[in-house]
Amino acid sequence: METFNIYNPVKIHFGAGVIGEAGKIAKKYSDNALIVTGRNSMQKSGTLDRLVKILKNAGVNSIIFDGITPNPTTSEIDSAAGVAREKKVGLVIGLGGGSPLDSAKAVAVAAKGDIPVWNYLKTPAKEALPVITIVSTSGTGSEVNRYSVMTNPETGEKPGFGYECMYPKDAIIDPEIMLSMPAYVTATTGFDVFVHIFESFTGKARNAFSSAYCMQTFYLLKDNLIRAYKEPDNVESRSNMALASALAGLAIDISGVGIMHAMEHPVSGNYPDIAHGAGLAVLAVESMKYNLNACKRDYTLMAHHLGIKRAGKSDDEYAMSLIEKTEEMLTALNLNIRLKDLGVKKDKLPKISGEAFTTMGFAIQNNPETIGEKEVLKILENSY
Amino acid sequence: METFNIYNPVKIHFGAGVIGEAGKIAKKYSDNALIVTGRNSMQKSGTLDRLVKILKNAGVNSIIFDGITPNPTTSEIDSAAGVAREKKVGLVIGLGGGSPLDSAKAVAVAAKGDIPVWNYLKTPAKEALPVITIVSTSGTGSEVNRYSVMTNPETGEKPGFGYECMYPKDAIIDPEIMLSMPAYVTATTGFDVFVHIFESFTGKARNAFSSAYCMQTFYLLKDNLIRAYKEPDNVESRSNMALASALAGLAIDISGVGIMHAMEHPVSGNYPDIAHGAGLAVLAVESMKYNLNACKRDYTLMAHHLGIKRAGKSDDEYAMSLIEKTEEMLTALNLNIRLKDLGVKKDKLPKISGEAFTTMGFAIQNNPETIGEKEVLKILENSY
Repeated sequence: METFNIYNPVKIHFGAGVIGEAGKIAKKYSDNALIVTGRNSMQKSGTLDRLVKILKNAGVNSIIFDGITPNPTTSEIDSAAGVAREKKVGLVIGLGGGSPLDSAKAVAVAAKGDIPVWNYLKTPAKEALPVITIVSTSGTGSEVNRYSVMTNPETGEKPGFGYECMYPKDAIIDPEIMLSMPAYVTATTGFDVFVHIFESFTGKARNAFSSAYCMQTFYLLKDNLIRAYKEPDNVESRSNMALASALAGLAIDISGVGIMHAMEHPVSGNYPDIAHGAGLAVLAVESMKYNLNACKRDYTLMAHHLGIKRAGKSDDEYAMSLIEKTEEMLTALNLNIRLKDLGVKKDKLPKISGEAFTTMGFAIQNNPETIGEKEVLKILENSY
Repeated sequence: METFNIYNPVKIHFGAGVIGEAGKIAKKYSDNALIVTGRNSMQKSGTLDRLVKILKNAGVNSIIFDGITPNPTTSEIDSAAGVAREKKVGLVIGLGGGSPLDSAKAVAVAAKGDIPVWNYLKTPAKEALPVITIVSTSGTGSEVNRYSVMTNPETGEKPGFGYECMYPKDAIIDPEIMLSMPAYVTATTGFDVFVHIFESFTGKARNAFSSAYCMQTFYLLKDNLIRAYKEPDNVESRSNMALASALAGLAIDISGVGIMHAMEHPVSGNYPDIAHGAGLAVLAVESMKYNLNACKRDYTLMAHHLGIKRAGKSDDEYAMSLIEKTEEMLTALNLNIRLKDLGVKKDKLPKISGEAFTTMGFAIQNNPETIGEKEVLKILENSY
């Protein structure tokens, strides 16, 4: 019989306008906060200014670190941690998509010690500054879980890590902020949600709790993934995708991910201009084919939850229809692309394949079908 | 658009044998614990002795309060809180079914102050001793949420209450302990799970998170509710019902309950020998009929999740099939009974109806269909 632990202490505040509560929430922890964000979108949409004002009105001073790039590097995180220490902040607020949110958690850990953040891959962190996440995409799920992913700029390695002290205290999920999300970001982060629940629902570490989140997310994606992309101002779809992102984030917090994430991290680690969701889009179909035999029944369940008609299909055909549906989704999202379309050089594939094992070993172990470096390389080649 | 908060910080430890970890877990909080339990079953099964030994081996001293009755009274809770204060315990461990678990949370609050526990219905509690739940039934869901239900022995009132400080720190869910559960307890507590997800899935306060827990629980109940009753030694079914209990407990932690609980609390409050689940069994079908029009589509979804065949049924017929299925379940569990079979006097029905509003107003408000005292009385009469 399965034995497992479940724990997620994040306070989720969900709904249109809840960013307005950020001041009151922040004040519980500190009157001096570091806002960790990216270089563009939160400035352009006015959300950063708005947040600073909301915090100020609650008596919370803001220090802004807006040097986080997509696929954030350890040097960005160490710089931000230095600012946090120097300015003696008592709180880190991550504002934006997965990159600033992941970074905020890593900064909160690194600010407490005086060793480079990379060292925490091997040295478990026992304490961190409190973190609030304010998410602008849907999404990586980073808003509600303990995970952080960072890239070593010297080696291209892009591992994930997460300790109990890294859970955000509060997650502010305001779908109105997401109305300004560009179409490409909507597509790539939305597809990331699909991969989270695919890998959570089929992973070896899944259980009834992670599967509950997955099932609900399949229902939400069915009607909202494409619609949020085609109708960017549809608040209902934005709201449902924000829910889907959070639910999927809770799912992987329990069950972890699989080979798609294991392969994608070294792809975007070596090519930092590639969006995580685009990397996943490229690798999804070949990975699903590889895992088909190990979890055929799960594929039929997922097909069912996604509303794919069964009529007249054999079990095998119905399982396969999940892969066909995935290709359809990718086409509708304009993400039916190849690894070479993303600018990846073919001679990098062996390095990427090797790093899947050295930096994402837990995801390899969690994959439903056993897999070695040769098979990973084959999937990369077939996706090229 | 909906706005809501989600928060549940309970650490769940699930699996056969996890009770063995109780000592290590308890030691994190204190080396002096009050065990709150009932008068019989945990002694007879040897679980109480086993727990005391496990705690002792970890260096945790146990003080036993085994005076909790089914439908626990405020005087039992106040007595236990007195013992907790006198013995200066730093931890309360609830061991058993819903009654000792609910009581443990109330004791943890009452031990921190010096006012009778009944006062906390009106005075919000800000602090409580840490609580660990070790559950022996499946179940009330009390193992994973903040709720406590207590009966005023002078008036028969049986309200529920729950504050943030009342969340158990840890929930130890060990299905092996449940193998000793008597058939009647398996049936009544198992039906309680069904009512939790029915009322959570249809309640006004539901959201995507509570519905995720509900959907998964419908799947688990479909194959395991009757089987756990018919095959008491089937560890897999016991395990799945233990999961169902916890998931449903998380669902109502978010969304609350409805009229079945609002009516049942005064039933077993006035007749403390009636098991909560038996009271619900009596009231379920008439309550479901009353709510049918307000949530017909939800009924069809629940029918679907419970695996009821749709073939040829209209929407209305398919919605009705949920009620028929409920009657079938009750028959299979030997719970297809009437209010009079439980010894309730007919002239008590107006008092019961009134108390549904005075003590369980939040559940009345949450019910999908608007309801007044006259309609509640009618349901009680139709169930008599």
